[in-house]
Amino acid sequence: MSRRPRVRVDLLNVSLDGYAAGSTVTFDEPIGGASELFGTFDGRVIAGVHTADAPITADRTFTSVWGQGVGVEIMGRGKFGPQRGPWPADGWRGWWGDEPPFRTPVVVLTHHAHEPITFDNGTSFHFVDADAAGALDHATELADGGDIRIGGGPSTVRQFLESDLVDFMHLAIVPVVLGGGTSLWAGLGNIHERFDIESVATPNGVVHQFWNRHGRSGE
Amino acid sequence: MSRRPRVRVDLLNVSLDGYAAGSTVTFDEPIGGASELFGTFDGRVIAGVHTADAPITADRTFTSVWGQGVGVEIMGRGKFGPQRGPWPADGWRGWWGDEPPFRTPVVVLTHHAHEPITFDNGTSFHFVDADAAGALDHATELADGGDIRIGGGPSTVRQFLESDLVDFMHLAIVPVVLGGGTSLWAGLGNIHERFDIESVATPNGVVHQFWNRHGRSGE
Repeated sequence: MSRRPRVRVDLLNVSLDGYAAGSTVTFDEPIGGASELFGTFDGRVIAGVHTADAPITADRTFTSVWGQGVGVEIMGRGKFGPQRGPWPADGWRGWWGDEPPFRTPVVVLTHHAHEPITFDNGTSFHFVDADAAGALDHATELADGGDIRIGGGPSTVRQFLESDLVDFMHLAIVPVVLGGGTSLWAGLGNIHERFDIESVATPNGVVHQFWNRHGRSGE
Repeated sequence: MSRRPRVRVDLLNVSLDGYAAGSTVTFDEPIGGASELFGTFDGRVIAGVHTADAPITADRTFTSVWGQGVGVEIMGRGKFGPQRGPWPADGWRGWWGDEPPFRTPVVVLTHHAHEPITFDNGTSFHFVDADAAGALDHATELADGGDIRIGGGPSTVRQFLESDLVDFMHLAIVPVVLGGGTSLWAGLGNIHERFDIESVATPNGVVHQFWNRHGRSGE
């Protein structure tokens, strides 16, 4: 079956006031102090429901979509590490130790040059200075026909939404009010008009939303 | 990560009056005339959301669990074919043509001997005369550490539920009233007491239920 790859945002947690991360990423706080966004449901099984011994719940079923058919991820620099400016020679290889969960090539958007970093489990980081469309071209070459996941943080997702490059988005609307942080929606007024949107509530109070861009497929 | 394989029922469609198939399987009606059970949502993506060009909806997300981590399926004879009694020499290789969707070994429960059937895509059918526990032993040997899916029909699923051998069950409660057919629930009064059950409605009116057996995991 021939299939056109999708550009996807998978499993982005968003607060009721529209924030998808805290304000500033530090070594101690990888998501900028917005840990409440991730406390509501545990047991994310991004590599499949069979990878954990925990019960197969509705939330875990939804989170298992994350890795399906993805050939490459694009992430902002802040998701890879807290450094600013030219890269220091600190041996930093990301937050994830020897087993980054991606298991595909990853394009890291940065204005500062960096050699690629490769892991044994299939993950490799490629540092690219480009806008959204340019990053997408670069990622597509690395994707081997798979889908392209926009991995965040929120300002990176927003950049691709502004450029109308996102085909699919899975949001988990978490019932917390952060009061501040990095907004997903700033500058995106009326963005919903470009998508078909389904909302499904799960028993713990999360609302999962599935955004499919109009005209993406024949349906 | 070491993990005990699960015995799973994945994506069993059930009517509001508790039927999961029609009464009699024939060559013309593989599910015994209960096609309404399958008309409510299309685009089942049992091999992953990326295998179809269609929008990634909540229903398709749920159906994508079907193949995750499964190493073997056990099915009743009626799911494999409509024949009765000793197998005729009719060359029957199942309903699915050259690409059965299973892509794993499949144990077919039958009192009548039959040589194994093998396909190039990883599917193989093994014909076994055993009760539920015996079939499970046989299937476990074929599963290569993966989960064991009880693939139906409903009377086969009921047999494993009666023997308390099911760890997980995903039901899709479809808003149709069949008025007759093969019941999933006959003889299973109070079966719900052995499970934690989540219900989640999707926009087209289907209620997905996730049954996790008490004490299956450490949670």
